[in-house]
Amino acid sequence: MSESVKEFNDYRSKMNDKILGDNNKIIKRIFNLDTNAFAEGALDVKTKELLGLVASTVLRCDDCVKYHLETSYKIGLKKEEVVEALGIATLVGGTIVIPHLRRAYEFWDALDEDSKTQ
Amino acid sequence: MSESVKEFNDYRSKMNDKILGDNNKIIKRIFNLDTNAFAEGALDVKTKELLGLVASTVLRCDDCVKYHLETSYKIGLKKEEVVEALGIATLVGGTIVIPHLRRAYEFWDALDEDSKTQ
Amino acid sequence: MSESVKEFNDYRSKMNDKILGDNNKIIKRIFNLDTNAFAEGALDVKTKELLGLVASTVLRCDDCVKYHLETSYKIGLKKEEVVEALGIATLVGGTIVIPHLRRAYEFWDALDEDSKTQ
Amino acid sequence: MSESVKEFNDYRSKMNDKILGDNNKIIKRIFNLDTNAFAEGALDVKTKELLGLVASTVLRCDDCVKYHLETSYKIGLKKEEVVEALGIATLVGGTIVIPHLRRAYEFWDALDEDSKTQ
Amino acid sequence: MSESVKEFNDYRSKMNDKILGDNNKIIKRIFNLDTNAFAEGALDVKTKELLGLVASTVLRCDDCVKYHLETSYKIGLKKEEVVEALGIATLVGGTIVIPHLRRAYEFWDALDEDSKTQ
Amino acid sequence: MSESVKEFNDYRSKMNDKILGDNNKIIKRIFNLDTNAFAEGALDVKTKELLGLVASTVLRCDDCVKYHLETSYKIGLKKEEVVEALGIATLVGGTIVIPHLRRAYEFWDALDEDSKTQ
Repeated sequence: MSESVKEFNDYRSKMNDKILGDNNKIIKRIFNLDTNAFAEGALDVKTKELLGLVASTVLRCDDCVKYHLETSYKIGLKKEEVVEALGIATLVGGTIVIPHLRRAYEFWDALDEDSKTQ
Repeated sequence: MSESVKEFNDYRSKMNDKILGDNNKIIKRIFNLDTNAFAEGALDVKTKELLGLVASTVLRCDDCVKYHLETSYKIGLKKEEVVEALGIATLVGGTIVIPHLRRAYEFWDALDEDSKTQ
Repeated sequence: MSESVKEFNDYRSKMNDKILGDNNKIIKRIFNLDTNAFAEGALDVKTKELLGLVASTVLRCDDCVKYHLETSYKIGLKKEEVVEALGIATLVGGTIVIPHLRRAYEFWDALDEDSKTQ
Repeated sequence: MSESVKEFNDYRSKMNDKILGDNNKIIKRIFNLDTNAFAEGALDVKTKELLGLVASTVLRCDDCVKYHLETSYKIGLKKEEVVEALGIATLVGGTIVIPHLRRAYEFWDALDEDSKTQ
Repeated sequence: MSESVKEFNDYRSKMNDKILGDNNKIIKRIFNLDTNAFAEGALDVKTKELLGLVASTVLRCDDCVKYHLETSYKIGLKKEEVVEALGIATLVGGTIVIPHLRRAYEFWDALDEDSKTQ
Repeated sequence: MSESVKEFNDYRSKMNDKILGDNNKIIKRIFNLDTNAFAEGALDVKTKELLGLVASTVLRCDDCVKYHLETSYKIGLKKEEVVEALGIATLVGGTIVIPHLRRAYEFWDALDEDSKTQ
């Protein structure tokens, strides 16, 4: 795995464990909901993942964008699909979204690299 | 048409005409892009409409939400699909999204009413 | 009750019933968490209510501000305490918070009126 | 004066008086700063007013936009200048700014009407 | 002191000195207000600090969160109290707050480490 | 050139090339508009650059702030002018803007350094 994807996931896991180990009921339940909300329902998993990606992008949350890019990659969304979703996010959210777009592209390339070297 | 849907659309058209009549190049092009971004591409029209809806909801723009709800309704998205998208928006955007959820539900009902009385 | 407080609560109840009647699991659980999060814990109820008020104010959600003002009023928070919390919100969130401050003051006065006429 | 401009100003004055009458030191000083920040300095008054307008527009604060539009009108900024500033705000802030653009155009027209009937 | 707390404070001091050395009246007064707003008043210092923390968290300002965590730590707020406040922030602000929660937990641990090694 | 300015520009160019190479029509046009919006019109180039700077600052986009600072520097805006614009941004956007102010000052100094060593 490329350093950046691995580093991102390691930090994320380590801190999530700390947070969940703390047993704050509200925070634990929100983490739980996060898993449920993206499961197949009236909408399929791919659509939901793109909804999470666009929400994260317009709210300009780089770590959330990375998380949804990684899941999108894993469940087989194509780059054109992801980029169209990011295009809508950039239009709705404005040019302040562009720096996040740069980091999203970089992370997608890192995911691509990783998949080739595994 | 119920007053609220009609009023919303009338005001929207009237003011869009004024804005576009002004010939500011930047604003005109952004309006144009808005039409193009939601056309069929790598993603289908229904998915794109839901992306626009979720982006508008987490950014808490009532008029944008109404606009995407109306288009969603017209292109045949089902209420369960729209509500699942709004659920993701509420989770990602937090409880401050809830007041916008109330108004979204109210507008969806108005769209429903309108379609029955036509 | 003054019209504005009653109207606010009636609309809120009516639409919450509609939303919850829809049985979307994610949305229902977020509504549930909202009740739990403000219950006595390591922090007392008054402090938590002020935290909800400040969060709502800096995120500029008028309906959320009204909701927390009403609860604050009911649990006996004094106006000076509420205003100090709003002062912190205005400093942290900037002058764009001021229009919401106006509406918060107006709603607090309405709550005051209501309590006198009951 | 057209109702909408007058109503806006009356409500604004009435509530500002209430807020300032409360003597919360932090809030009073922020109100004070607001007056000072837009006075002539290294930048002239017109430029500063446009900066306030653009900041208010991208943060999507309708009342703040109206306030800066009214001052812009009074100090002689031309519509083309104001519209170019709003165009930058729409590009930077995205299409979610458009509903605020509609209300800004409507308010500018109301200011125009008022000036003709005085 | 752990590097991360020290580095954070050193950079903060160095740049604040530069900014204040510049003598811009508006900026200087806002810095001043920031000191005053969190002093004891109708609300005690601990409550105010938590209000600042929650405002910073829902607005997703990592440096502001760190600043309020450090002050919270120094004035004796307990971890359970801080975590309950962060739980409210996560519920109100949504899952996009979670990455900031991770960094908040990490910084609190760093504050803890520092206090043991002094 | 100082590392930080150069690094910022190199990463920005490299990723912009990748994004534009992808030929997504919406994103390409938004990039195009970004160039046009800041060209001389009813408002001069310096005023427009300050509008872009203030919009970026209140929306707390560090990379956007850096971009507009660099252009501001190149077209001859004086530090006092830039700082007054940043002061308005801090007042309108609140103390959460302050960490971005620190990084803006640091970047301006880097621009200054670069210009001396060329």
